[in-house]
Amino acid sequence: MLKPIKFYDIPSVIPGQAWSPNTWKTRYSLNFKGLPYQTVWVEFPDIEKVSKKIGTLPTDTKGGLPYYSLPAIHDPNTNTTLVESALIAEYLDTTYPDTPKLFPPGTRALQHAFVDAFMSKLGALWQFALPASNTILNPSSEAYFRRSREKTFGKKIEDIAPTGSAMEMEWAKVKAGFGAIDGWLQKGKADGPYFLGKEPTFADFVVASFILWCKKIWGPDSSQWKDIMSWNEGRWEAFIKGLEKYETGPVSVRM
Amino acid sequence: MLKPIKFYDIPSVIPGQAWSPNTWKTRYSLNFKGLPYQTVWVEFPDIEKVSKKIGTLPTDTKGGLPYYSLPAIHDPNTNTTLVESALIAEYLDTTYPDTPKLFPPGTRALQHAFVDAFMSKLGALWQFALPASNTILNPSSEAYFRRSREKTFGKKIEDIAPTGSAMEMEWAKVKAGFGAIDGWLQKGKADGPYFLGKEPTFADFVVASFILWCKKIWGPDSSQWKDIMSWNEGRWEAFIKGLEKYETGPVSVRM
Repeated sequence: MLKPIKFYDIPSVIPGQAWSPNTWKTRYSLNFKGLPYQTVWVEFPDIEKVSKKIGTLPTDTKGGLPYYSLPAIHDPNTNTTLVESALIAEYLDTTYPDTPKLFPPGTRALQHAFVDAFMSKLGALWQFALPASNTILNPSSEAYFRRSREKTFGKKIEDIAPTGSAMEMEWAKVKAGFGAIDGWLQKGKADGPYFLGKEPTFADFVVASFILWCKKIWGPDSSQWKDIMSWNEGRWEAFIKGLEKYETGPVSVRM
Repeated sequence: MLKPIKFYDIPSVIPGQAWSPNTWKTRYSLNFKGLPYQTVWVEFPDIEKVSKKIGTLPTDTKGGLPYYSLPAIHDPNTNTTLVESALIAEYLDTTYPDTPKLFPPGTRALQHAFVDAFMSKLGALWQFALPASNTILNPSSEAYFRRSREKTFGKKIEDIAPTGSAMEMEWAKVKAGFGAIDGWLQKGKADGPYFLGKEPTFADFVVASFILWCKKIWGPDSSQWKDIMSWNEGRWEAFIKGLEKYETGPVSVRM
């Protein structure tokens, strides 16, 4: 009988709390595999402290300083601690070989290239999504997120998103980015609805995590979400709908 | 008994003539599948005329005008004419199902995303490789290629490649691009040497076509090629070496 994996995620004020596209990749991964887990909610200012305590390394540097990030997991069944969603996915594939594969044999190189390609299409999204993300955080995370993003962009977080005609132009770029991603899926249409055909893999959960992020930060009734829903013949709402069953985990350990 | 497929390629002055990264994708594809073909060599100024004659459509527009390109094929066995390497690859997979697959089932969407990701890493290469390509063309293609690229870049083709410290900086970007591609392969190292593991697929032939291009335009003894060979622990020479048997086709129809 497996002990629940500890899954470190960042909370918010929205129902269910989960919102971060990066941690969603791991939440989806755990749910897809049907592995028992417990979420440990960590506010932004506590990520470094918690990371050091559980023993994960910085995933990046920012301004010359080590940068700690989530998702991370601690698996008490193997006494393993890991940070970064793709590494976690590979670990889960290897450690629990009888669960559905996030990286089917032979697909790792191509899936990693895919994640690069996908991220490169989202260049225009951040300026809209970061300020919106800030509005759903708890107070301590909000202050931290504001401070770090204002430093990066050199302006108040409320001023990061463009307005007027610049807004229209930049939002059109977001739409074009999603259009390119839709184009890839169209090329494989005969293979199935997912990036590797009939069954979802890590690539799909990466995409779904970003779409879900948009839905969570703007809300289902927002003009932004309604706009996204209208793109590519409704592809994106349908895409996350198809993976909806992996938004939640095994009932027995749901918290 | 299959009749040879007509394969439309662009000639050059180097041994074997083939040099273009785009047409190499199709040459590799045909050889990988062991299909009989005959090369029809088409100089740049004749591409539009030949395309209209065989009935292929423009693949792009340039300056508001239709732009015709190669590779194209005419398959007399099915009376099919096609342009563009990925479309040709898919056609060959479908039409000759008993030959090795360029797009194994379920991999089309991800391979198309891969090609986008791969091309995005080559941004700094063109300024070096286009002028070098021009030096190996036959006179009529040289004049045409020079005219069209000088129009695009707004300078003499000999002046497109940067010099001095700018050259060093831009060449470092080329190296970084190859480094990123190597990074993807490293992630899948345990799966095999290719992008989908043990066997080459279309993604590998795309990459190999661009590496081969570098080797062909600069020559095996050039400083550029020696530099590329030294990157990523010799990955790139080894990569095309592993696919060398697909550089040539069935002996019976070799011309």
